Amino acid sequence: MRSGHSLAFNQFEEIVSFITIRASNRSETTVLKLLEKYKYSMSQAISPFQINWEAESNWNSDELPDKIKGSSLLIPIPKSSTNGLMLREKGYSESIESLSEYHFLSDGTFILLTNYGNTIAEERIWFLSENVRCRSSVVRTSNGGGIMQTSFASEIRRLTS
Amino acid sequence: MRSGHSLAFNQFEEIVSFITIRASNRSETTVLKLLEKYKYSMSQAISPFQINWEAESNWNSDELPDKIKGSSLLIPIPKSSTNGLMLREKGYSESIESLSEYHFLSDGTFILLTNYGNTIAEERIWFLSENVRCRSSVVRTSNGGGIMQTSFASEIRRLTS
Repeated sequence: MRSGHSLAFNQFEEIVSFITIRASNRSETTVLKLLEKYKYSMSQAISPFQINWEAESNWNSDELPDKIKGSSLLIPIPKSSTNGLMLREKGYSESIESLSEYHFLSDGTFILLTNYGNTIAEERIWFLSENVRCRSSVVRTSNGGGIMQTSFASEIRRLTS
Repeated sequence: MRSGHSLAFNQFEEIVSFITIRASNRSETTVLKLLEKYKYSMSQAISPFQINWEAESNWNSDELPDKIKGSSLLIPIPKSSTNGLMLREKGYSESIESLSEYHFLSDGTFILLTNYGNTIAEERIWFLSENVRCRSSVVRTSNGGGIMQTSFASEIRRLTS
């Protein structure tokens, strides 16, 4: 369950999504290609993973096909145990390849920062229990000023074999 | 703008609230009464404040008058610069006086934990800019298991003289 808040327009969006997260192998072609693009080696990457999503929104989303259904490969490149880079095939607020920075707060909350050029996105993820997590995001204009949208998701993990 | 997620029922709630936060004086009668109730002294308290709210929900909220309009006095009792207790005239998930514990994460995110007896609430507040903040909450059953509801608010501060 995800809610979007458009602050300037005082508008709510309600989205229900099914998200699949699957570990990838570091030697898969797509992983190697993304690493090569950013000039990192397989040994610098840990736990690459593939995200697939299908979303239903209460807004007419004909114009946003990328947000309705899609997939993205993500590759963490740790710098230390608490921070690093995240290579992404597709980003959140703009559907282009992107390089993000991540770090963990003192309680394990995960923060992901991405500069897309026109916009800057901050996502944060924290777990309420082993199988329930919250994920929030904010999208700002990259000149620093405007906060365009916030969102919040409550996500329940369904383990599959 | 606040969104509620009822996880078991897959239901969204949309709430628009006007919230007033005003510093109280430590020597006000209501402050002294709340301190006395919990056996704290005026010198242990810092920056007590009064919150008033008026909310409009897209749910029929006739049965929940407390959530529509109300006020609460809060008194922080710091134990250190990063944690302490919060005395509250009224709590979030149950409208009774409550004693909460608070602490700050490494990036300044504020966490407030309240045990109401039947339920446990965690609220977290973080600032996106000087005048925009996010506030999320989770309400659990106090036997530890069930997550009943999450919520997320995007709040814009309007300074008044």
